[in-house]
Order: sequence, then C-alpha cells, then structure tokens
Amino acid sequence: MSEPAPLPAADAGVLTALLDGEYAALRGRVRDFLTEHASFHVEVEELGRDDYRDRVRDLVVEAAADDLTRSGYPAAYGGHDDFGGNVAAFETLAFGDLSVLVKFGVQFGLFGGAIQMLGTAPHHEAWLADIGAAKLLGSFAMTETGHGSNVQAIGTTATYDPATDEFVIDTPDDDARKDYIGNAARHAQAAAVFAQLVVPGSDGQPEQHGVHALFVPLRDESGAPLPGVRIGDCGKKLGLQGVDNGRIWFDGVRVPRTNLLNRYGDVSAAGVYTSPIDNPDRRFFTMLGTLVQGRVCVGGAGITASKTALTIATRYAAGRRQFGPAGKPETVLLDYGQHQRRLLPLIARTYALHFAQERLARDFHEVFTAGDATSERRRRALESRAAATKALATWHATTAIQECREACGGAGYLAANRFAALKADTDVFTTFEGDNTILLQLVGKGRLTDLKDEFGSFDQVDMVRYVGRQAIETLAEKVIARSVVERVRDAARGHDEGEPGGDLLDPAYQLRMLRTREERITGSVARRLKAGMDAGEDPSEVFSRCQHHLLAAASAHAERIVLEALLTKVAAMPEGPERTLLEKLGHLHALAEIERDRAWWLEHGRLSTERAKSVTRAVDTLCRELRPHALTLVDGFGVPEALLTQEI
Amino acid sequence: MSEPAPLPAADAGVLTALLDGEYAALRGRVRDFLTEHASFHVEVEELGRDDYRDRVRDLVVEAAADDLTRSGYPAAYGGHDDFGGNVAAFETLAFGDLSVLVKFGVQFGLFGGAIQMLGTAPHHEAWLADIGAAKLLGSFAMTETGHGSNVQAIGTTATYDPATDEFVIDTPDDDARKDYIGNAARHAQAAAVFAQLVVPGSDGQPEQHGVHALFVPLRDESGAPLPGVRIGDCGKKLGLQGVDNGRIWFDGVRVPRTNLLNRYGDVSAAGVYTSPIDNPDRRFFTMLGTLVQGRVCVGGAGITASKTALTIATRYAAGRRQFGPAGKPETVLLDYGQHQRRLLPLIARTYALHFAQERLARDFHEVFTAGDATSERRRRALESRAAATKALATWHATTAIQECREACGGAGYLAANRFAALKADTDVFTTFEGDNTILLQLVGKGRLTDLKDEFGSFDQVDMVRYVGRQAIETLAEKVIARSVVERVRDAARGHDEGEPGGDLLDPAYQLRMLRTREERITGSVARRLKAGMDAGEDPSEVFSRCQHHLLAAASAHAERIVLEALLTKVAAMPEGPERTLLEKLGHLHALAEIERDRAWWLEHGRLSTERAKSVTRAVDTLCRELRPHALTLVDGFGVPEALLTQEI
Repeated sequence: MSEPAPLPAADAGVLTALLDGEYAALRGRVRDFLTEHASFHVEVEELGRDDYRDRVRDLVVEAAADDLTRSGYPAAYGGHDDFGGNVAAFETLAFGDLSVLVKFGVQFGLFGGAIQMLGTAPHHEAWLADIGAAKLLGSFAMTETGHGSNVQAIGTTATYDPATDEFVIDTPDDDARKDYIGNAARHAQAAAVFAQLVVPGSDGQPEQHGVHALFVPLRDESGAPLPGVRIGDCGKKLGLQGVDNGRIWFDGVRVPRTNLLNRYGDVSAAGVYTSPIDNPDRRFFTMLGTLVQGRVCVGGAGITASKTALTIATRYAAGRRQFGPAGKPETVLLDYGQHQRRLLPLIARTYALHFAQERLARDFHEVFTAGDATSERRRRALESRAAATKALATWHATTAIQECREACGGAGYLAANRFAALKADTDVFTTFEGDNTILLQLVGKGRLTDLKDEFGSFDQVDMVRYVGRQAIETLAEKVIARSVVERVRDAARGHDEGEPGGDLLDPAYQLRMLRTREERITGSVARRLKAGMDAGEDPSEVFSRCQHHLLAAASAHAERIVLEALLTKVAAMPEGPERTLLEKLGHLHALAEIERDRAWWLEHGRLSTERAKSVTRAVDTLCRELRPHALTLVDGFGVPEALLTQEI
Repeated sequence: MSEPAPLPAADAGVLTALLDGEYAALRGRVRDFLTEHASFHVEVEELGRDDYRDRVRDLVVEAAADDLTRSGYPAAYGGHDDFGGNVAAFETLAFGDLSVLVKFGVQFGLFGGAIQMLGTAPHHEAWLADIGAAKLLGSFAMTETGHGSNVQAIGTTATYDPATDEFVIDTPDDDARKDYIGNAARHAQAAAVFAQLVVPGSDGQPEQHGVHALFVPLRDESGAPLPGVRIGDCGKKLGLQGVDNGRIWFDGVRVPRTNLLNRYGDVSAAGVYTSPIDNPDRRFFTMLGTLVQGRVCVGGAGITASKTALTIATRYAAGRRQFGPAGKPETVLLDYGQHQRRLLPLIARTYALHFAQERLARDFHEVFTAGDATSERRRRALESRAAATKALATWHATTAIQECREACGGAGYLAANRFAALKADTDVFTTFEGDNTILLQLVGKGRLTDLKDEFGSFDQVDMVRYVGRQAIETLAEKVIARSVVERVRDAARGHDEGEPGGDLLDPAYQLRMLRTREERITGSVARRLKAGMDAGEDPSEVFSRCQHHLLAAASAHAERIVLEALLTKVAAMPEGPERTLLEKLGHLHALAEIERDRAWWLEHGRLSTERAKSVTRAVDTLCRELRPHALTLVDGFGVPEALLTQEI
C-alpha cells in the first residue's frame, strides 16, 4: 500500500476563525476575560470549599460587569436580544474553570432563563436586569430527590390561598425536597421553584393543574433562610466543588399570587386557572421546551472541554519520547500508530461535534428569535436536535478526556495538568440537563412520531406497506445477500490495486451509509413495537424489550446529523489547505464511525467483509496522513494559551 | 420469542464462598478490619491533604499490627511464606479507602517486595521484619519524569567509589528526578532506588551495568531529608489524595556498597561486577519479572472496586422508580431493558475477571513458591498473564464505575455515594504498575514469540508453511465465504423455530470463537510484520503501522484466557442453583464479548449475519433472565455491608 502525498500545511488561525464563526468577537472577549483570570483554576485548587465557592461567585459577578452574561435577554433589561450569543459565550467560558461555568449557567441561563421564558412583562421588569447584572442571585429549583428525569411527577406543591392572594409552597416529604440545586447552599437569594399548582375548585375540592414555576425568595439580607425555608448542603461532589449545590425544603412558604411565572398558566385573584394551552401534557412539554437553552449550552461546554484535553494530550504526545530503536533518540509518542489511533479520531469527532453544535445553536437562535411565530414542528425539531447533540457531545467529553488522561500516563494524573478537574467537573454533564439515556429515548420516540406523521398512523395502509416493503428487503437479504455480490465484485477488482476502497472517501457514500442505518433501525424498532402491541402484550414490557433498539435508532440519527453538519460546513469552505485538511478529517470522522459500528452494516448486507476491512485500513491511513497536522488541528481549537500552562 | 423458564433462586453466601476461595479466612479478617474502620472513608472526606495522609499512614500501621501485611514474607521475618495470601489480602482491602490500599501496596508490596526479591539474606535480615511491621516506612523509587514505561532508559546513576566502598547516587537532570513516588513526599524513611550501575573499569573508563536497585535512606529521625536528598511533593492529584506522592533528586548521596540489592548483580570491594545472568537484557527483564506482584495486585484491586460500584448501582436500580404507565407506581429502573443492558453484562464480566484473577494469583503463588526451580517459560507465561489480566481488569474498573455513576444520575455525583472516590482513585490503575497499552503490547509480542517457538524462526520452512496455509484460507473466504454457507443453513432452519441460536449457549462454541479470533489475529499480524521486514522497510515504521493490530491480538488473547478461567471454574462447581446461575452468567459474558466485536467474526467468515443478530437477541434474553438474580449476584461479591452505608 503506497503512502498518499502529504497534505499542504494549514493555518491554525484560519481554523480558529472558522470555528469561532459569527461570534468571533464575543468569543474573543470571553477569551480575554479568561486570560485575565488565567490563574483562577490554579488558585482555587487548594482552597477550602467555602472559599472556592465564594471565589466562583465573585468571578461570576465580574463576568456580569464585563457584559458577558446576558446576550439573550431583552435590550430593555441590559441584554442584546441575541440568543445565539448566550450559547457562544457559555461555550467559550468552558475553556476556564468549570465551576465558574456552571454557576454562570445556573444564574443567567437557568434562573434568569426561567424568569425570561416562563414569566411575563412584570416579572421581567422586576428582576431581569438585576439577574443579568448578578445583583440578584438565584437558583433553578426543579429536580427533587425522588424525581430527576420525570419532572412531571415532582411532589412540591404551590397551593393558592384566595384569602390572602398568595401561593403556599410545601414539600410534602423528603422525596420531594429539591435536590442538587446549584447556587442554593450558599448564595441564592431567590429561586424559580417548580411545583404542582393546586387551586381550590368551585366545589371546594382542590384542582391540580400540573407543574408550574414561581419566583420564591429564599434568603434575607443577611443571607439567612427565610421562615419556612430549610436549606441543606449536598456536600462534597465528584467535581464542581466551586458550585454550592443544596437541598431545599419548603414548609408553608407564602409568596404573592403574582409571583407565579404565568406565561403558560395563570390564576386569577378569585382562584380561576387559565392557560393559553388547554392540553395539560402539551402545556407541560411546551414549558419545558422553552428551557432548552441549558441543554444546548451543556453540550457545547462538553465539546469545549474536549478541546482543552485534546490540546494538552496532543502537545504532550508531540514532544514526549519513549522507547524506540537502539542507539537512536527514543520515538515521539505521536509517531506510534496506536497513539495516532487514540487521539486523531477524537480530534476529528470534536470538529464534527463543534459544527453540529454550531448548527444547533443557530436553530436555537432562530426559533427563539421568532418566538411565538415558530411552528410547533420547528420547536420539536429543535428539541430533538438539542437532545441528540447534548448526549453525543457530553459522552464524547467523558470518553475524550479519559483517553487523553491515560495517553499522558502518570503526568495526566497530576492535578496541575488539568485532567483531574476536567474529568471530575464534566462528569455530571452526561446526566444533568437531561440524562443522556433519557434524551436519546426522547430522540428515538420523536423519530417514530415523525415516521407516523409521514405515513399516517400505525394502523393505516401506507404504514403497513412501508413496513412490509422493508420486511421483504430483509428477507431478500437473508437468501441472496447483497453483501455476497459486493464481495465478489471486490474480490474481482482486487482491493490492493489502486486506491484501497476508493469510494470510501466519497462524503456522499459516507452519509448514505449513516442514513441507511438510521432509516433501517428506526423502521425495524417501529415494526417490533407494533408487533408487540398487536399481540396484546403489556406495553411497558414491549417497551422495555425494545428500549435498547430504540436507543440504537436514536444514536444512529444523532450520528447522521453530526456527520451532515460537518460535511455541510466543509462543503461551504473556500478551496485551500484548511479545506483539504478538514476534508481528510471528515473522512476520518465518518470512517471511524463506520468502523466502530461496522457490524451493523455487515449484518444488514450494506458492507461486504472486504469493504469492512478496507474501512479499517482507511482509518489507519488517514491517521498517518493527519499526524503531521495534529498540532495545527488542536491549535485551531483556540484554547487560550494562558490556560495551557500545565507542567507537561 | 417465548420467555425461558425462570432460574431457581441462588444463595448469595454460596457465591461469596466461591469467590473467596481458599483464602476465605484471610479475606474475612480483612473484611473485619475494614468493618472496624468503616467510617474511615467518610471521615477523611473533609480532611486537608496532610491530615488525610497521616490518617492513611496510621491505618497502614494498624493493618500491620493486625498481621495483614506480610503473608508473602519469609516466616523468619514475621511472614507466612504465602505469596497468594498477599494478593488475597490486597484484593479484599480494596473494598475500603483506596489511598490506604495504595499506601499499603507501596510499603509492603513494592518497597518490601524489592528488598525481598532483589535483595539477599543480609538485606532481609536487616530490614524485612521492620518493613512488614511498618516500623520502617519506604518508597519504591523507579519511575522518573522522563521515563515511566521505558525503565531501562532511566537516568539516575549509582557509581561505585572503591576508595570508600560506597555507591554514589546522582540525579543528572530534571528528566531523571524520581517522580510520582508513593510514600515519598511525607513518610518514607528509605527507598529502593533504581539506578544505572556504574563501576570504574580496570582501564579507568566507567563500565555501565544497567539498572539495579539500592537501599537508600531518605530521611533522618526528625523526618528531614538527609544531606544530598531533595524531596518535592506531587501536590494534588486526580485521586488518591491520601497517598503522599513525591519527587526525589539525589546529589552525591553515598550508601555502603552492601546496600546494593545484589541478587542479580553484585560489585566486589575491588569494584568487580558479577551477575548470575550474563545477558544484560535478560538480567534486566528477570529483575523486573520478580516485581510482578504489584501488577497482579492492581488488577485484583480494580475488580474489587468494580464490585463495590456495581453493588451500589444495582441496589439503587432495584429500588429507584422513574416514569412508567399512567395511574400505576412508576417502573423500577432495573425493569427497563436498557438498564439491564447497562449493568448485567458488567456484573458478568466482573465474575469472569474475578476467576481470571484467581487463576493468575494461583500461578503467581506457585511460581514464586517454587522460586528458582521454576522454568523460564513458566515465568514468562506468568508475566504475560499478569499483564493481560491487569490491563483488562483495570480498564473494566474504569468502564464499570463510570457506567454505575451515570446509572445513578445526580445521586451518583455526590461524594457520599462513593463513586467520586472510586472513580478518581482507580483512574490511575490503568497507567501505573505498567501502562495498559504497553502491557498489551508485551502480551502481543509474547504471543508472536510463542508462535516463533512453535514453528521455529520466521525464516524457517515451517513458519512459512503456517503463514501460507492461513493466507490460503483467507483467499478462500474471499471467494466462497464460509459465512454464506452458514447463512443459508440458518435461513433454511429458520432461526425462530425452537431455541434461538441454540448452540450459542454451548460454552465450547463460545470458547472456540474466542480462540479462533486470537489465533487468526496473531497469525495475521505476524504475516504483516514479516512482510514489512522482508520488504526492507524501517522496522519502527513497520511496527508503528502494525501496533494497533498487535494490540488487537493481545486483547483477543486476554479475552480468551478470561473466558477460559470462567468456564473452568463453573465446570468444577457442584450441581445446584448457583452453578445454574453462573452458567447463565457465563453465557452472558461470552456472548456480550462476541456481540461487542462481532464485526471481526463477520469479516472473517466465522459468523453469519443471521447468527450475529441471534447473538444480540441472546444477550437481550440473558439480561432479562438474570434480572431477578441481579441482587443475589452483587450480594455474592461480599462487599462489607458497613461500607455500603451510602445515602442512596
């Protein structure tokens, strides 16, 4: 196998500009802020928890002073009406200490976001400017000990008392205590509290109206909890020690009726409940949907943390020598094939996820800028894309940081080299702002719904036909096996003549492969679910059996949209060495994914055994080709140099 | 697909007895010790680093008082001449705080082990009893900043000075400082220091004799470093904060000539070097081989930590409810198919690795008990098995603990629930006591050497024939494809009639599958290496290209010996519900591995696409069958209940 010609040298600055995109100026300002506070993550390393938390609070307040915290708020309250800017600022801030990032997200995104999205003009007028300026610190009190993912079943109640025109907030039992609430243990003066809304009905019986949010003061001027509010500390966590996560119990806490964030449901002084959305389920999911920003942001932060880890590990690998031929200098780690295999596909995937995240952030910006003018379908698509991207991005962060730590050996274990904090702080990204498994499940169910929309209900003729056609294809594969044809063709052609598996490097082919997998798995899980239901089995039993399959459908969808985003981006680049480099990187990303799950295509006759082996060879070759450009690629990530002063 | 009949209830106590094996009594004593100190890991949680380190030291001293620390030392020095006991004690101690474990390992295993294995009678006489009683605390100073994996290239020198009958220890540059040395920053009074031995030759030119170890005092009675010794602190690490890792520089430090641990190389008063092993490479690897105990122990500790994590996560999953059908109690997490898929294969793999570790520990015991009577081949086999088991076991720990943390959501992120410490403390297991990638490389190279031994050198006729036969088989597969035959047979039989893929549940078939993979990959990487060499390419270039392939061969070997150990153990069990349960668990372990890498068998015509899909279905079915026994299986791990008082 002859080596391909070397790629021309690319400019890391051009790559950074490409990644920074339309928010380059804002990202630059956040980088300057981080550079100014470059020693922060070192200084806090040895602080006690309370001091660390206070330092984090101080830095969040400083970020507000630098106008980095409220791009998405209305201009009337100090913001810039720019939702996308919020995401870009958050993503960039993730190059620094992640406790600062999470505290920032809780304050301006979750707490402020709840006021902005679920509240109405009087609420904005009362609080939004102070929140954006970090003069009013707050929490987002949704999760309870007994209910994390299943928010609809939380136990906290907000009962309307017409006698005083107030809501009374109560925690019925310890399962319903608010838990893991960021900002609560130490700093929050107030919280957006999610509770089951209860209104005395005309017949005297209480009416339940489902989950709503209220603005609830938590602490007095001295910082002491207000009467009826009990606050505990979650104590030491796996990471993010600079965030003061706490627990909150409410015992008959009274707030004015007007503290109900009433955009999607209101109660009149007389105790009459009204809502612009009649269906309670739809109302609940609409409310939750307005809070998608947190999910969008966390995925972006995961990608940023991966960039930091990969920059440190790649620079180490390009300098560190170990073993090698006798009598010569030892070999540079990055010249080992296995080391290339460890790092380069992760770099490629980080670029791909970055572009997928950019697309997501743009959709988010457009949907939220359009506001009520956006279609239900468009909003649902955004939520699905946010869930898919967040799950892939945060799992990628966990994987990439772990691989980078191990690739730096003992040096990677020292806190000074940043992996300790990166690993511990990002760990919770996979389960907060939506547990990744639950998110993929949502994506999977969404895909089934889309299928249903396209073909009518599961009972209609078209659907049956659709299912039928696929079933016939499956049967045909069993007997004549498309792969056999491909195999014979490969053997006849002789895969070592010329470019090995030439058309593997065709992006259209790569995307077709990922599309095929997505469509086939989605169709097949739909058939299984339908068959189980038709046979009258217990639906939750049927679901449990198909869950793994449904998640595979969701992953396949998510992988497809990531590749699509990468290819779309690269196709729009001007000709030049950077485009050539990213084209190669795109091949590596696509083929590494096809290699990872090649069994699926083999099993479904979409890949011959010879072509599958060619995929592995192509990944090897691409790693070698990209090796001389590894430093350029990580320099392109634009991690502020001041944050890369680790020992190694 | 009909559900199989439920398995009979098994007794967790019987499983624990099976796992504890011949060292049940000793393991019981260690469990008692941990139970007595059950609050230790909670108490140290909030301590400052120095206090934590001192508490750890104190507990290690207490373990010595309880006679848990020196099973493997000679009876003459307070030990029990029982190498296997050492491993069993260490493995069991890993249920507790892992800083205590690692400090214990450094003191009694690495430091004491070096004195025992590399020293001779006068050294044993002088120090071994005090080391075992923790009266003389010490370090194992091998790794340097510039050389972790490649020990043979370390820079520290020990130069013999005939004028004073002393060795002079020097650190030539910062790359040669001793680094990450456990026990060094605070407590060690002495160290086993590895250095390049230099002796003035008869012609006045210094002679290099390679790496040797010396006993070097580090601190005086007051704890201050001795003249010429400089000690730094590695500071905060990713985990194991209770271990005082440090850096050591030597500047003209003099020790008596007799402090050379001289079992494998000695220097006379006149400065004449002698060794029972002439070949310097063989001598080096023999010396290193005597230190295999550390590697054996770390793998075992990884398995133990996985047991703790899986017990916590499985108990949580069996109690926690989230989502479910309207109007009914929410569904228990463990009743979700995906949750079963997340936890049960990890439980199965933990059992499999336990038995592989048991086999390794027995081999270790036998080889070291036999001492010099053991053959070179037997020692090499032990080292290969230790490397393979350690790599798989510690990567498994990283994977299992991460999965368990995520499976417990936000609760998993709280330090009180133990995953924080488990994750951080075990993380370094994958790269210390041999970096896993380097270890698998050793295993892979060993397999190639075995092949060479079997068939003579690469140039001989038999080898060429062997390679040739395989090559012909490969060609045949390209054209007629054995899988096609299998596929047609499956299709004809109709895989839904009767037991799906019946013979998948034949252990002989499972093992044959893993053997085939191992043999084929090893043969194929041998051919690639040979072809590259024959073509006159740069050997390091050839190696770099084949490294990924070589590591795949090593993994395949490691997986085979793990499955073999599991099957061997289960086959020796008496009939009964525990055996029936472990047989099922064995199927799950084997088929989950075949499913994970099914692409390989598909590509090599050893699995038809239909059979591959049956493997996936069988894994699903086995998870459902084992679900009612999940608690029994984790209870069987025998984690001391006093250590399972986490919040969740």
